[in-house]
Amino acid sequence: MSYRAPPFAATALAVDAPPIPACRAWAERYDGCHGPVLDLTQAVPGDRQPEELMDRLAAAAGDRALAGYGPLEGEPELREAFAAETQRLHDGDVTPADVRVTAGANLAFSLAMAVLAAPGDSVLLPAPWFFNHQMALALRGVQAIPLPCTAAGAFLPDPERAEALLTPRTRAIVLVTPNNPTGAILPLGLIAQFAELCRRRGLWLVLDETYRDFLPFGHMPHRLFSRPDWRDFVVQLYSFSKAYGVPGHRMGAVVAGGGFHAQFVKAVDNIQICPPRPPQRALAWAIPMLREWRDASRDRIQSRALAVQHALRRAPAWEVDAQGAYFVWLRVPSGGPDARIVAERLAREAGLVTLPGSVFGPGGERHLRVAFANVEERLLPAIPARLAAMLGRHGPASSGRAGLPAGGA
Amino acid sequence: MSYRAPPFAATALAVDAPPIPACRAWAERYDGCHGPVLDLTQAVPGDRQPEELMDRLAAAAGDRALAGYGPLEGEPELREAFAAETQRLHDGDVTPADVRVTAGANLAFSLAMAVLAAPGDSVLLPAPWFFNHQMALALRGVQAIPLPCTAAGAFLPDPERAEALLTPRTRAIVLVTPNNPTGAILPLGLIAQFAELCRRRGLWLVLDETYRDFLPFGHMPHRLFSRPDWRDFVVQLYSFSKAYGVPGHRMGAVVAGGGFHAQFVKAVDNIQICPPRPPQRALAWAIPMLREWRDASRDRIQSRALAVQHALRRAPAWEVDAQGAYFVWLRVPSGGPDARIVAERLAREAGLVTLPGSVFGPGGERHLRVAFANVEERLLPAIPARLAAMLGRHGPASSGRAGLPAGGA
Repeated sequence: MSYRAPPFAATALAVDAPPIPACRAWAERYDGCHGPVLDLTQAVPGDRQPEELMDRLAAAAGDRALAGYGPLEGEPELREAFAAETQRLHDGDVTPADVRVTAGANLAFSLAMAVLAAPGDSVLLPAPWFFNHQMALALRGVQAIPLPCTAAGAFLPDPERAEALLTPRTRAIVLVTPNNPTGAILPLGLIAQFAELCRRRGLWLVLDETYRDFLPFGHMPHRLFSRPDWRDFVVQLYSFSKAYGVPGHRMGAVVAGGGFHAQFVKAVDNIQICPPRPPQRALAWAIPMLREWRDASRDRIQSRALAVQHALRRAPAWEVDAQGAYFVWLRVPSGGPDARIVAERLAREAGLVTLPGSVFGPGGERHLRVAFANVEERLLPAIPARLAAMLGRHGPASSGRAGLPAGGA
Repeated sequence: MSYRAPPFAATALAVDAPPIPACRAWAERYDGCHGPVLDLTQAVPGDRQPEELMDRLAAAAGDRALAGYGPLEGEPELREAFAAETQRLHDGDVTPADVRVTAGANLAFSLAMAVLAAPGDSVLLPAPWFFNHQMALALRGVQAIPLPCTAAGAFLPDPERAEALLTPRTRAIVLVTPNNPTGAILPLGLIAQFAELCRRRGLWLVLDETYRDFLPFGHMPHRLFSRPDWRDFVVQLYSFSKAYGVPGHRMGAVVAGGGFHAQFVKAVDNIQICPPRPPQRALAWAIPMLREWRDASRDRIQSRALAVQHALRRAPAWEVDAQGAYFVWLRVPSGGPDARIVAERLAREAGLVTLPGSVFGPGGERHLRVAFANVEERLLPAIPARLAAMLGRHGPASSGRAGLPAGGA
């Protein structure tokens, strides 16, 4: 018998393989000559979770009352705590009825896109973009339109340029602030401009605020929730993974109005049913009670950011084009190969594993994303020597060319 | 300002609201005259989970080692335990490399469909179908083609009829066994015939075996895993929710070959990242250790099934057209209104909440799905009186017409 193999969906074949496992695999060939592998691929929170949070996670998971199906919307106690915190941070009008809990912020994005954009529609993503956003859209047959953001423009998206890119099939503009991968923080005024643009053109404004808790102290994320009409067009996505150091528990949230939720629940019901229940109870407690811990955690990561910045001064051939709470957006030495080749060589030859900017879409061909939040501060000074090692010698690099193979990827 | 509201995706608007919350809402107007509400809407496992399982769920959730991101594929220990159990039950060839863990079986279905069917493609679903399957497909712009299954045919899908319904865009046939909502168990030979059909026509065969652990003792689910070519076209979906009574922890699994998984991981990465980690460790322990408990749980539910059957003899106007581990597929009295009206009246007037068959797609207009697994056996005899109450009098019903409003929905 010679049966033909059934085909895969064209939409799946068009999506690239997940980048993080692929980049980590490069380091399997590293011989250890510069010390242990430094894995800077994933935005992993690095702080030790408070004992009391772990105790509460354990108690909730051991409770039979939370073992059954829960409300599709999420547990009322978490929705209440998250609404109060969002209202406090944004000085706006957010109620528990506006909040839905999801099994992570990636699921929140994917479910939101399922109700905002049909196959053949398009969504505007500032580029470089978070690769999972583009992948999730492509898997749904939705086109991601890149809105280029450059170092010259401080990696901020430009509303006029955005408007020029809109098509009759564009349904939403997605803003990620603080940004992944560049770390750029969008100013309040710029977010307000995008809100006006969306309102005027009949578009959804989707704000991915996964890194909200890592904004500088006292920084207002945006003031959209003060608009009387926010529920008509604004969707906020949030992740508990980073702020509480619990990505393994998969917890995210969506804030939006009733019209949105009437559609969103359809996606929730058939893809997620309810979100995992036990961590919801622990996080409902954590939101008000771990505020100080969260602030301290933000400060520790900020201190790591400074240590990285300091260390990278000893690698002048590598330019820090942007830096945020979790990431450095590092330009590879000019004249050498593209980031894809550089990242692979750094992993294999120097045990320094980063993501090449090319996985973040157009405009990332010359950059590496360096996710430092989970690396102990004492290890960060090793970065320049590893970068230099790939350039063919030890010690600080003064030229980007030495030891690099010619040509791009 | 009169801004227009941004539109929702056409694919989302075409999907119905989730049925279970809607049907439960009917009971809010029930006055309690026949006793407390009997909620028979959801396939909820009714057994008290073993103490040791709860202890292990708690210990895992309190472990910092599981708080971080885990492997996209799921924890190796769970994949190993599940592969061994599947191999044992199916007497086939299943290895840990074939297994992926997901945050529930609904997510498994949705992710699988994302890689098997693109917008505009179609998938064959035996009808009545599990409503979430159709909803998930519709949300992706994939057409669900109903393959009618009738009481006369013991609710078994017919391969010849299936073949006649195939179009050039059909990518997969989905079989649910034991079935939701009818409870029908597909014979081994019939599953083998569908496998041959899929092989011959270049289609994926997707088997949703959420209720596998509730098959009669010693019943082989199917022998597909003995086929040397199973990895080329078979995808099995599984849920830990029912067998271990932990739907609130959201755990499912997918068994398939390497070619499938190379695509599947793309959907996993951008929608789920990793599945929730702590419950995976507890379930890896539970699979071999709770075998006897699972069997006893299956027997208890079987005993409830008999109690329901027994009770329904006192409601002769209502015919049991099919019955499986978790469900009775109950025909509403002939000559009266359609199931949608009947279900609403039963909930509002008699506090008996079921799902009308119409939510399970074409062919369900005259049926109710009665999910009895989580109702204590002592409460089940109350069902006939509630059914009769809706017919306008107390005591056993002898005619389906009395007291019913004329006409259909």
